[in-house]
Amino acid sequence: MVTPINSVQLIGLNEAPEVTPGMDLAQIILDAARASDLNLHDDDILIVTHKVVSKAEGRLVDLRDVQPSDLARRFAEQWGKDARQVEVVLRESARIVRMDRGIIISQTRHGFVCANAGVDASNVAGEDIVCLLPVDPDASAAGLREAIRREIGVRPAVIITDSFGRPWRQGIVNVAIGVAGIQPLVDYRGQPDDHGRVMNVSVIAIADELASAAELVTGKLGRCPFVVARGYTSPGRDSGEGRGSDLLMDASMDLFR
Amino acid sequence: MVTPINSVQLIGLNEAPEVTPGMDLAQIILDAARASDLNLHDDDILIVTHKVVSKAEGRLVDLRDVQPSDLARRFAEQWGKDARQVEVVLRESARIVRMDRGIIISQTRHGFVCANAGVDASNVAGEDIVCLLPVDPDASAAGLREAIRREIGVRPAVIITDSFGRPWRQGIVNVAIGVAGIQPLVDYRGQPDDHGRVMNVSVIAIADELASAAELVTGKLGRCPFVVARGYTSPGRDSGEGRGSDLLMDASMDLFR
Repeated sequence: MVTPINSVQLIGLNEAPEVTPGMDLAQIILDAARASDLNLHDDDILIVTHKVVSKAEGRLVDLRDVQPSDLARRFAEQWGKDARQVEVVLRESARIVRMDRGIIISQTRHGFVCANAGVDASNVAGEDIVCLLPVDPDASAAGLREAIRREIGVRPAVIITDSFGRPWRQGIVNVAIGVAGIQPLVDYRGQPDDHGRVMNVSVIAIADELASAAELVTGKLGRCPFVVARGYTSPGRDSGEGRGSDLLMDASMDLFR
Repeated sequence: MVTPINSVQLIGLNEAPEVTPGMDLAQIILDAARASDLNLHDDDILIVTHKVVSKAEGRLVDLRDVQPSDLARRFAEQWGKDARQVEVVLRESARIVRMDRGIIISQTRHGFVCANAGVDASNVAGEDIVCLLPVDPDASAAGLREAIRREIGVRPAVIITDSFGRPWRQGIVNVAIGVAGIQPLVDYRGQPDDHGRVMNVSVIAIADELASAAELVTGKLGRCPFVVARGYTSPGRDSGEGRGSDLLMDASMDLFR
């Protein structure tokens, strides 16, 4: 085993049961860590896919209770979708960015721009059940962190993730939607680089990079919703608290939009 | 030391010298691996920041040789930029997406949409020298892979990266611009999830996620341009060759654009 100076390990916790509303997610994580013989440390970063958070928080909708609007009905008919699920997407959207080919790109109430407002039927038990994003992913992250501290006296940072598409590039990537105990952005502006030059645009979205890294061990089909990132050292770990919404770009500043 | 079933390690190779045009990058990487006491394996993924690739390939421009156009001059004057550098950005662009506040978002000849067409002065030796993207990052990746095979008989996958901004979200993240020996996208469509439901939109840009993961160890200021990802298992490792351009979304298909 190599022990290099500069390395980060992403450790998947495999022993999670199916999460249902009301379950104690911190307890489930600690059980999974124990089953993996892993002691959590203060400087670990615990990365959790939002779906288990949403399930534990009861953010599930039974489509049999949903009355689709005319808009939802028309769109669903045109593209062969479930009108009730389209209706849930519309309800979870603050603003529709694009609505075409059966896909709705919208801005959620949190400010995230993503497909179908984060409403998702995959990896959810029950044929008519869909899963929403957590109401306040930062609060969810902070709650998990505090519950873990209460149980074992350790305070890892927590990142809650979802997989988002993006313009110009194929494929989805995992990003951070909620954080606790870590600054999601690291600002290198004004610091000299290796050649003594001042760097001009280097604000790095490390929480998104950590989220993407975690996806390498969670995969998409299995039941591995918890990843521990170990060995990551960065200004973002030590500069106090940040929020997932720090990752949102104000429209007026967004040259890429 | 924990030995979990499911983990990925990102190992930074720290011993790289300043790369100059004509240097044998494969040799530099192998020396760095040796100095880190690391034996490369066939199933490793070697992740390399494009800047060292560009430098080795001589993709550097001396601004003292550049005659700025009128457009470059006007834009530079308005925003307090170096007109010669603006001129290089315009030359490296196939299409200007946006040009405001001193920043040019453009589409490069490769098809990448990024700030300043990937032209960058940070971490480059020489006050008047700027660094361009490699001409063909896939070819660069394949060349590195082949040179490493020739030297030590091992064929890790290779990913060449750059840090890109993106719409809607703050901060830049590392993405893949060239690949060899790995499919950059893993397609889970049509496979049943954990509950036997067929997943509908799950094409994951694993090369981008690997690139982002690597940035966690390279940082931005230091001299750690090489990262080995070890322990990553995925369909993308076994399903043959892909290209970095597989990650480019055709405009006609791009609902996020």
